[in-house]
Amino acid sequence: MLKFEVSKQCQKTRARTGIISTSHGEITTPIFMPVGTLGSVKAVSVEDLKNCGAQIILGNTYHLYLRPGCDVISHLKGLHKFMNWDRPVLTDSGGFQFFSLAKLAKFTDEGVSFQSHIDGSAHKFTPEKAVEIQTILGSDIMMSLDWCIGHPATKQESMEALKKTTQWAKRGLDFWKSQCLESAESLQVSSLSSESYTSGFPNALFGIVQGGMYKELRSISAEQLVELGFPGYAVGGLSVGEPTDLMYEIADHTVPLLPYNKPRYVMGVGTPENLVEMVGMGVDMFDCVMPSRNARNGQLFTGEGTINISNAKFRLDSEPIDKNCNCYTCQHYSRAYLRHLYKSRELLAYRLNTIHNLHFYLNLMRQIREAIEGGYFAEFQIGFKKWEGDQYDLRKSS
Amino acid sequence: MLKFEVSKQCQKTRARTGIISTSHGEITTPIFMPVGTLGSVKAVSVEDLKNCGAQIILGNTYHLYLRPGCDVISHLKGLHKFMNWDRPVLTDSGGFQFFSLAKLAKFTDEGVSFQSHIDGSAHKFTPEKAVEIQTILGSDIMMSLDWCIGHPATKQESMEALKKTTQWAKRGLDFWKSQCLESAESLQVSSLSSESYTSGFPNALFGIVQGGMYKELRSISAEQLVELGFPGYAVGGLSVGEPTDLMYEIADHTVPLLPYNKPRYVMGVGTPENLVEMVGMGVDMFDCVMPSRNARNGQLFTGEGTINISNAKFRLDSEPIDKNCNCYTCQHYSRAYLRHLYKSRELLAYRLNTIHNLHFYLNLMRQIREAIEGGYFAEFQIGFKKWEGDQYDLRKSS
Repeated sequence: MLKFEVSKQCQKTRARTGIISTSHGEITTPIFMPVGTLGSVKAVSVEDLKNCGAQIILGNTYHLYLRPGCDVISHLKGLHKFMNWDRPVLTDSGGFQFFSLAKLAKFTDEGVSFQSHIDGSAHKFTPEKAVEIQTILGSDIMMSLDWCIGHPATKQESMEALKKTTQWAKRGLDFWKSQCLESAESLQVSSLSSESYTSGFPNALFGIVQGGMYKELRSISAEQLVELGFPGYAVGGLSVGEPTDLMYEIADHTVPLLPYNKPRYVMGVGTPENLVEMVGMGVDMFDCVMPSRNARNGQLFTGEGTINISNAKFRLDSEPIDKNCNCYTCQHYSRAYLRHLYKSRELLAYRLNTIHNLHFYLNLMRQIREAIEGGYFAEFQIGFKKWEGDQYDLRKSS
Repeated sequence: MLKFEVSKQCQKTRARTGIISTSHGEITTPIFMPVGTLGSVKAVSVEDLKNCGAQIILGNTYHLYLRPGCDVISHLKGLHKFMNWDRPVLTDSGGFQFFSLAKLAKFTDEGVSFQSHIDGSAHKFTPEKAVEIQTILGSDIMMSLDWCIGHPATKQESMEALKKTTQWAKRGLDFWKSQCLESAESLQVSSLSSESYTSGFPNALFGIVQGGMYKELRSISAEQLVELGFPGYAVGGLSVGEPTDLMYEIADHTVPLLPYNKPRYVMGVGTPENLVEMVGMGVDMFDCVMPSRNARNGQLFTGEGTINISNAKFRLDSEPIDKNCNCYTCQHYSRAYLRHLYKSRELLAYRLNTIHNLHFYLNLMRQIREAIEGGYFAEFQIGFKKWEGDQYDLRKSS
């Protein structure tokens, strides 16, 4: 039942606000999705997430498949019930983890054979199996299995990965549609059209554009996927080590090739600046481990740049992290206390820091939506570019 | 302004309920105090503590003195404000840590010289300094510096430690009274009696009975301290490796030697069974790291004994830890989810487990108070003894 409607179009950029409707509620876009790799956004509770303004979170199919395993999540009636999260969930397909994490991943036409990064056990994913697992997880938005490559990659390698990604996308889509059809038949509504039975299904499958850093290949990939007809589209294979300008160039080229009336998601991005920039390109959805991971490393986002809470200059500092922030952490704790907790490796440090960083990201997205709705997003973007924070330490998404 | 009143006396045992009034509010006794070593009860927030029913928490003077340091806590206006806890705080004196943790602790008549367990730096505590530091921390209930010994210890060693403890108790008390007097004079109420100016002071100092496992020495220690006249009394030097029966024997001997109309606190104890047993001896206050530390090790308390959440048998278990428990964790999460979090070392595991165990302890104390108030504590105690849990893994308090 995934639906998407654009609410407001910026007149000076491609930015837009919209509403994605899922069977677990609505999401107002553009949105940032906190990453809950193993069925928990690290260090915080579901109430913390809601208090920070999280509308949707991401779960990692590869990780959840290995641990706790599909039988556990199936027995516990899906990821939502398992982790006590009643808002939408998007799951990735595992493609990025085969690229970044799995040992000895072997790509064939059929799918990916790999060894678990935990115990070395042998497993195999196919495009069909990726959809099947995500269906068991109960994901609201599933992702097609894709073939992700790093940077730099040759045009030949990029073309190879693109081709495989399209083939797998088609197989995943066919499998999902057959699931939808079975479901529709069991409900005795078999006379419905393909479009309507997929839109009646409780979840949706997105396609992922690949093509490396070659605009020509990105065009081919986008065209092929759009022809297949997905409920939404993602741009994958970005933020894999390329310079920021190149990432922007590829995103700026690719995003407009995706249907205007479908959600557009750039995977694994990024810094606050990246989000502001890419919203201007027409991107609706983002995910990144940056706010949560950096929080656990003591790096905190403020309206005036990032700070590292372990810095000795905060030893006696009675101010909150950011005096303009209304997150739980800033409303109750001083930098001195947070520094002390962090230096002492107290577990509360990780929670308080993560709450602040997630609030920063989600509040930024709220400000972005307000700017688009208010007709001043282009000005907001210019103002944000002037902001001179410390350099963000962007690491790979897990 | 510490006051204590017995509310209800059990007719069959020495158990009693009471109310301790402090400048941060009232505490209903008997009570268990969660341990917040470094200005945070590990893994939980102050809201979690309140939701679990915590009325008072313990802070460790030795730890806080070393990290973040008294200047920090003084600058941040005391431990309560620093950690955002507005209910009473009891601080120990450091005595136990010199025994258990500090490197090369050297005991002299004057005090204790020691090296930090963190960086090896040299420090010295005297009885006066222990009171001074606890005053800076803003503790509601301060403890006298004591000389703690292990088990077994000879009668000679135990006598030595007892003597020193009494001398130090007197010096600490004199120092505290002089502080109170200065404070009273600055308020121009110097005509008050010693008793009234100390009762008007915002905090209180407790004496600690030592004497090892020798009843005769415990009697001497108790008599000497009672003669000095403290607002409350603790029994120290228990749960230091002695068998449970011996611990009970010494506590049972010592507690009745302490004034009926003052709070009585047994330090560093213990298992749920220990609490039920010792309440029957007339003990009003307890502290122990057991519920929080064991939670972080995956050991959870239930009405039917302890479970280790990492056990494979919980893999598909959709039940809460304890189906009769109304803590946040049991109301929202299955054993399967908690096992998964724990096995995956997710930070949320430590918080959810700690919430459950603290709730178990604090709920047990609530049931104990109800039993005393209801006149059926002796029966409650017998019923509890029949309870056959797994063996608790009681480790040393930090």
